[in-house]
Amino acid sequence: MPRLADHDARRRQITDAARRVIVRGGLEAATFQAVAAEAGISVRLVQYYFGTKKEFLLGTLKSVIDAMASRFIEQFESLGDDPDPRFALQTIGRALLPLDDLRRDEAQVLAAYQAARLTGSEPLPSETLAPARLLVETLAEHIGRARGYPTGDDSPDTQAAIGLDAELLSVLIPGLSQTVLSDFHTPERAAELLDHAIDRILGPAGPTSPREE
Amino acid sequence: MPRLADHDARRRQITDAARRVIVRGGLEAATFQAVAAEAGISVRLVQYYFGTKKEFLLGTLKSVIDAMASRFIEQFESLGDDPDPRFALQTIGRALLPLDDLRRDEAQVLAAYQAARLTGSEPLPSETLAPARLLVETLAEHIGRARGYPTGDDSPDTQAAIGLDAELLSVLIPGLSQTVLSDFHTPERAAELLDHAIDRILGPAGPTSPREE
Repeated sequence: MPRLADHDARRRQITDAARRVIVRGGLEAATFQAVAAEAGISVRLVQYYFGTKKEFLLGTLKSVIDAMASRFIEQFESLGDDPDPRFALQTIGRALLPLDDLRRDEAQVLAAYQAARLTGSEPLPSETLAPARLLVETLAEHIGRARGYPTGDDSPDTQAAIGLDAELLSVLIPGLSQTVLSDFHTPERAAELLDHAIDRILGPAGPTSPREE
Repeated sequence: MPRLADHDARRRQITDAARRVIVRGGLEAATFQAVAAEAGISVRLVQYYFGTKKEFLLGTLKSVIDAMASRFIEQFESLGDDPDPRFALQTIGRALLPLDDLRRDEAQVLAAYQAARLTGSEPLPSETLAPARLLVETLAEHIGRARGYPTGDDSPDTQAAIGLDAELLSVLIPGLSQTVLSDFHTPERAAELLDHAIDRILGPAGPTSPREE
């Protein structure tokens, strides 16, 4: 279906341009005009693909969330069927931390939308929360596996503790992203803090446990 | 010094009005005109007290950070000389979470500045980071006390672990604030996650340990 692929590629070209504009100047800089200029296409074409400003901003947000979710799912799949749980948690966490320029840009765009949403000017639809839920479930699965699941203790207290641990990590990852973006922590320190949190949740790593970048 | 008090009270009146304007409409809504109208004073007076727009935005940010820091220092002082470390960490953490409307507004204003700073339009001076450093040091002190300091092991490894634990909590608190503002977590769940993180850092509480709201 070449036409569909063209359509998707064009939308991607526009949302990529929008991401760069937002990184440079914030959400208020992302006008049809500025994004069309950045993408090297006409304003009419941006309007054709996205209709209203609201749809266009939402499309850009979704493209960033989709890119982050795809990366995290890809990392997760690459681990195979029975990965070391500690290594799995480290890998998934790192996939979402701003450890390179692209991830830094994405985290910055998310922060801009987050701030806008808080003041009510750009509400986020609930579907944008789906990747956050998938993240919590995936983290919970690996924490459970580290504790011997699915064959282990499935009492409500133990299940609740796993849920709390998974949410703790899922809150920590965007918290760490923000401190990296603010230059309060280096990316290396953020990764170290992530590992430390995983150690606090799973207990310290044994001498043979993998622990690589 | 009544005149100085008047001066401070007037500045406070203006920054309080600015906080409300930013909560409603974001940083871009905080013009001299809008804030003067919200405070019920003239634009000329706002300009007299703050000069440039930049000084005025910075003054508002500082007033929010000072209010949060004062509350955390007040909570910290109220604990006395030898508080239970777990209770001390819970109390300090709760002082900074958006558990009521005022703290919610403050967290929202901080998020707006954070997003603006990331896009470079409103750089934050380094002095605004001082409360964050004080927070990490205070958390580290109580974590150290829970492990028997200052009489305990002061090896570099143990000291480094205390530092990592303190930074972990200090990153978690704004992370939790954001999830509450986004309605991803209720304030009660955020407080529960804070307690859980403290349990993971200190080990589970004994049966007699205080654990109150």
